[in-house]
Amino acid sequence: MGGDFGPQVTIPASLSCLAKNPDLNLILVGDEAKLKEMFSSEIARYSNRIRIIHASQIVEMDESPQKALKNKKDSSMRVAINLVREGKADACVSAGNTGALMATARFVLKMIPGVERPAIISTMPSIFGHTYMLDLGGNVDCTANQLYQFAIMGEEVVKALEGIDAPKVGLLNIGEEDVKGNEQVKSASKLLESSSLNYIGYVEGNSINAGATEVDLIVTDGFVGNVALKSIEGAAKMIGDKLRASFTDSLISKLCGLCAYPVLKKFKASIDPRMYNGASFIGLRGLVIKSHGGADEIAFETAIHLAEIEAKHDVARKISDKIEQALMGQEAGS
Amino acid sequence: MGGDFGPQVTIPASLSCLAKNPDLNLILVGDEAKLKEMFSSEIARYSNRIRIIHASQIVEMDESPQKALKNKKDSSMRVAINLVREGKADACVSAGNTGALMATARFVLKMIPGVERPAIISTMPSIFGHTYMLDLGGNVDCTANQLYQFAIMGEEVVKALEGIDAPKVGLLNIGEEDVKGNEQVKSASKLLESSSLNYIGYVEGNSINAGATEVDLIVTDGFVGNVALKSIEGAAKMIGDKLRASFTDSLISKLCGLCAYPVLKKFKASIDPRMYNGASFIGLRGLVIKSHGGADEIAFETAIHLAEIEAKHDVARKISDKIEQALMGQEAGS
Repeated sequence: MGGDFGPQVTIPASLSCLAKNPDLNLILVGDEAKLKEMFSSEIARYSNRIRIIHASQIVEMDESPQKALKNKKDSSMRVAINLVREGKADACVSAGNTGALMATARFVLKMIPGVERPAIISTMPSIFGHTYMLDLGGNVDCTANQLYQFAIMGEEVVKALEGIDAPKVGLLNIGEEDVKGNEQVKSASKLLESSSLNYIGYVEGNSINAGATEVDLIVTDGFVGNVALKSIEGAAKMIGDKLRASFTDSLISKLCGLCAYPVLKKFKASIDPRMYNGASFIGLRGLVIKSHGGADEIAFETAIHLAEIEAKHDVARKISDKIEQALMGQEAGS
Repeated sequence: MGGDFGPQVTIPASLSCLAKNPDLNLILVGDEAKLKEMFSSEIARYSNRIRIIHASQIVEMDESPQKALKNKKDSSMRVAINLVREGKADACVSAGNTGALMATARFVLKMIPGVERPAIISTMPSIFGHTYMLDLGGNVDCTANQLYQFAIMGEEVVKALEGIDAPKVGLLNIGEEDVKGNEQVKSASKLLESSSLNYIGYVEGNSINAGATEVDLIVTDGFVGNVALKSIEGAAKMIGDKLRASFTDSLISKLCGLCAYPVLKKFKASIDPRMYNGASFIGLRGLVIKSHGGADEIAFETAIHLAEIEAKHDVARKISDKIEQALMGQEAGS
């Protein structure tokens, strides 16, 4: 029910995923009467692979996480996450209020034992392949150990989703020299150096879009990660606006644009942010994928597809095993 | 002598600035024999507006600020900053080692009384106009009061350079709601709210390239500012690479590119980072402008031009006056 467009986007995206992947089963959680009214024939077509579970409430996009937790015990996101906890769903996908989704996921699923804080991880585009980055969530002040845990958890995600053995892990800093950065980053770097991770050292902001040839996973706190992510979004928007303006500011420019149309279209597709939609909440005892609130059908499909892959690779369990190992290592080392 | 290209870039840029602005006088600080050998006739042409002051040393680009301060007392950057302190130059422009330049500027010029830390400010491009951002330097852990001082100093820069009365000041955060962010940001927001600044509240990373219609000055700490700046550089590079790849991946694409060439050229010029070269060190008793180390002639000209404007508007003195006022206000208020 969440996101800027609700079932208008989430249901067609779900149906499209079902059409593409015969192994997929979906549970639609929300206002049953409304969903059936809007999409009765489409849902009927996939009746053996769709279940609707009714939820009487909706968390508003601007509702505080605390209020949502307290007053919306029958919201679509709460009921969906309950299904994950009960083992009735392998993952929950939502375009709803991020803060409320995280608070609910944390409350209902609980954290993996030993994890200090859950984090949000997503992919960042580049010219070749892509790079994962975390935390993109709200972990504003992170200790060195929390950054270290993010690296451990993130590595499992990259390994599972990319099928590579030793992802290159970088720590976001403001220079590549050892003297640069704040105390948390410096201490986290020492922890990473003595870990079994393939730690390549500090990386800077311009590595985020440099791609997997340089770094597979970038670790930072949620404040810096969020600012970097949104700065990149803003830069892409500005450049796109300037490109559009250049091709429309005169009749001749428009003619040039017409000639270049097929290439411009392909270029636009190559940086389409909808292909990168879907951020994973990790560190929890279950999978929750957050779609961008403004996602359209194609973008929401990407998020569902991400959930499928993570479920197939049992990412939450792999993270849990790895954290357990790391904690044992720390105990043995201390 | 600094930067990746030394006098090969800085001298032609200087000569070009002299040609364009008859009011400008330049002092070239560096290896006198070398400079005269390389550009004897050009320098002779402007002999009444150029002085060469010899400096026997050069700070290397990877030299530590401490070592540069201790061992390079006759370096070009040290001698140039000495000239500013002695009132023989109105501003110093350098493409050299940023850390060493800041350490030298701080040591030689001293901070404006009351300023806790100097900061680095620069402009960020947007579709309409541009936005100033600080700190882009190395102030990794900033207190609320330091962020507040950055806002006061930055406002004076924007007022002087843009000729506007009450620049819109935003504080970089990870959400626009009051509950978001870390303690420093929240406390800085309270200080800004009760100040005389035109404080518009929190802004997010995507506002950095949104332009002056939204915000004139964005305040953040040097860690976040540096990551945001470099993230934007990386995003622009990736998008440029993808655009180039799209227009070269087949014969038909290349033909399209040929048709669109005039527009693509104009587009490229509209996002040319050389037009944004030059970051100002502020909070010091004198003007120092840092050019990008990789600057070419056009980019270095932009940095010299920035120094001219700041000198003309006596920016360092204006910041000093404003800080004094603010401190008196704090004392009266406490």
